[in-house]
Amino acid sequence: MLVGFGRVGRRFAKLIIEQYHVLEKKHSLRLEFVAIADSRGYVFGDELTASRVLDLTMLPRGGLAIAGRKGSLLDIIDRLDYDVLVNAAVSSYKDGQPGLAYAKAALQRGKAYVTADKPPLALALNQLEKQKIFYKATVMAGTPLIDLLRYGLLGRGVKRVIGILNGTSNYVLGLLENGLGLDEAIRRAQEEGYAEPNPSNDLHGVDLAAKAAIIAQTLGCNTTLRDVVIEDKITENTEKRVEELLRRGMRLKYVAVIDGCKAFVRLVDIGPDNPLYNVNGANNGVVIETGDESRIYLEGPGAGVDVTAWTLLSDVLLATKLVLARN
Amino acid sequence: MLVGFGRVGRRFAKLIIEQYHVLEKKHSLRLEFVAIADSRGYVFGDELTASRVLDLTMLPRGGLAIAGRKGSLLDIIDRLDYDVLVNAAVSSYKDGQPGLAYAKAALQRGKAYVTADKPPLALALNQLEKQKIFYKATVMAGTPLIDLLRYGLLGRGVKRVIGILNGTSNYVLGLLENGLGLDEAIRRAQEEGYAEPNPSNDLHGVDLAAKAAIIAQTLGCNTTLRDVVIEDKITENTEKRVEELLRRGMRLKYVAVIDGCKAFVRLVDIGPDNPLYNVNGANNGVVIETGDESRIYLEGPGAGVDVTAWTLLSDVLLATKLVLARN
Repeated sequence: MLVGFGRVGRRFAKLIIEQYHVLEKKHSLRLEFVAIADSRGYVFGDELTASRVLDLTMLPRGGLAIAGRKGSLLDIIDRLDYDVLVNAAVSSYKDGQPGLAYAKAALQRGKAYVTADKPPLALALNQLEKQKIFYKATVMAGTPLIDLLRYGLLGRGVKRVIGILNGTSNYVLGLLENGLGLDEAIRRAQEEGYAEPNPSNDLHGVDLAAKAAIIAQTLGCNTTLRDVVIEDKITENTEKRVEELLRRGMRLKYVAVIDGCKAFVRLVDIGPDNPLYNVNGANNGVVIETGDESRIYLEGPGAGVDVTAWTLLSDVLLATKLVLARN
Repeated sequence: MLVGFGRVGRRFAKLIIEQYHVLEKKHSLRLEFVAIADSRGYVFGDELTASRVLDLTMLPRGGLAIAGRKGSLLDIIDRLDYDVLVNAAVSSYKDGQPGLAYAKAALQRGKAYVTADKPPLALALNQLEKQKIFYKATVMAGTPLIDLLRYGLLGRGVKRVIGILNGTSNYVLGLLENGLGLDEAIRRAQEEGYAEPNPSNDLHGVDLAAKAAIIAQTLGCNTTLRDVVIEDKITENTEKRVEELLRRGMRLKYVAVIDGCKAFVRLVDIGPDNPLYNVNGANNGVVIETGDESRIYLEGPGAGVDVTAWTLLSDVLLATKLVLARN
């Protein structure tokens, strides 16, 4: 069952249909839609043939109520028979709603929950039944940092994580290095699809703070979005600092830092010996230090509609392997 | 139950004892040794208190038969009551034995199998019940590449993997760049603990080929060690090529390549735009290209007694979460 039918939700729906035979052949998995919902309405059941789903992806935004039924999402999350709830909707950073309610309703019924929706987890991941939540699309969407921490480094005692985890701000900082002013850089980033019409969540650290909170809770800390200290924002004053550093062969990077169970968002000076120095454009990169003194570096795509949809697909597969196989 | 009681096995045994309270508190897991075995004998049952285990780690190599009983390992793998078999022994590349027999015996009884022993998996991973095998210590031991591929990139359709996955050869190539001749470089690497007395598996590609085969099978290919094409070895002739490349601002790297389901070991010219260019010393690094056109880079420690033991610990934890919780 899919809730949220904006750009990511639609790409995900198409992907499931495109990949149907690969998934069946390679993973012995036949994925069918039980329901597809947006905030106003939903379509469900036998109506959801492949061609019907593809038709739905052509509707104007919020059009499911017209094509299908009006009604409460919580009601169908509670009532219908599905295995995995996929949340591609966008919740509020104020209270994590409506995603938090969807998550709770699905988990209460023992369903697996796959999500790209940051606010509910940034605020309350620790309150939910973590083992049934698959959420690597919320941080470094195209690069499985979350799974690296959850599975790959389980028990290694991660001490410190420092990451360029917001592509928009990294892209804008790169433009400042090329001599553009902040306003011009933002405009350019918007034109090229790297920044939203209102880029303040990206440039003022809210998005990074949310990701820091999700990472910290993944590591077993009780650190929610409200505990993350945003020490710096990207403003006009940042231009001068970028220039000065560049003259000294260094770069300014906007990072999330998780140090023990404390979490920060800050602008840091990075020299060429640090692998984060080479993270360009909208790419993401993260350095992880473990309790056994290992230093691990992971780099790859952050956000993006296409990779986010692919990562949701990966998490649906993982949910079927790790959760559903148990029931 | 632990089989193999050389340097890695002993470090692992100590680690389990050192970390007992952390594992209990943080992961609600009480790890106890049911048996510890080497190729000649074993100690088991109530005899294995923490202080007794620490005493055993002081024995000369192969000393368990004297401290405990002589007897067949397969017999106790078949007979004793344990949840996870940890294999820190070293098998032969000829037939994967004795590890392959241990793995089969444990898996047949529905036990989880955690291993750092490459040959059995390089030769026959696909013949075993993969879901119950945890083997991230076999490739990039300190860095969870295998879990990244198994869980993080599940369903992403990995197309190509290219990696510096042998620390010894990378260390030796670095010394050649510093002007040392091959013999001198090997001697230095041996003195500093980066190369074994007989370094031919590392310098002639067998170790890389085994890792390539394990990666390929992890990705669902039927590519065993016997299918991997070793195109290059590090020989005296390599010195000149390293020098020439260095003059052109490039580096020679000895890599495993998995391309579709074909696998190769080769020396490649790497320029500064490739993240593998910056992999120094005995570190490992790997570039992964997915079906959705993402390029992901992972870097970190390869082998090493300490990180291998920590990674075995991580896999024991993962096994208890993913396999035992189901039974």
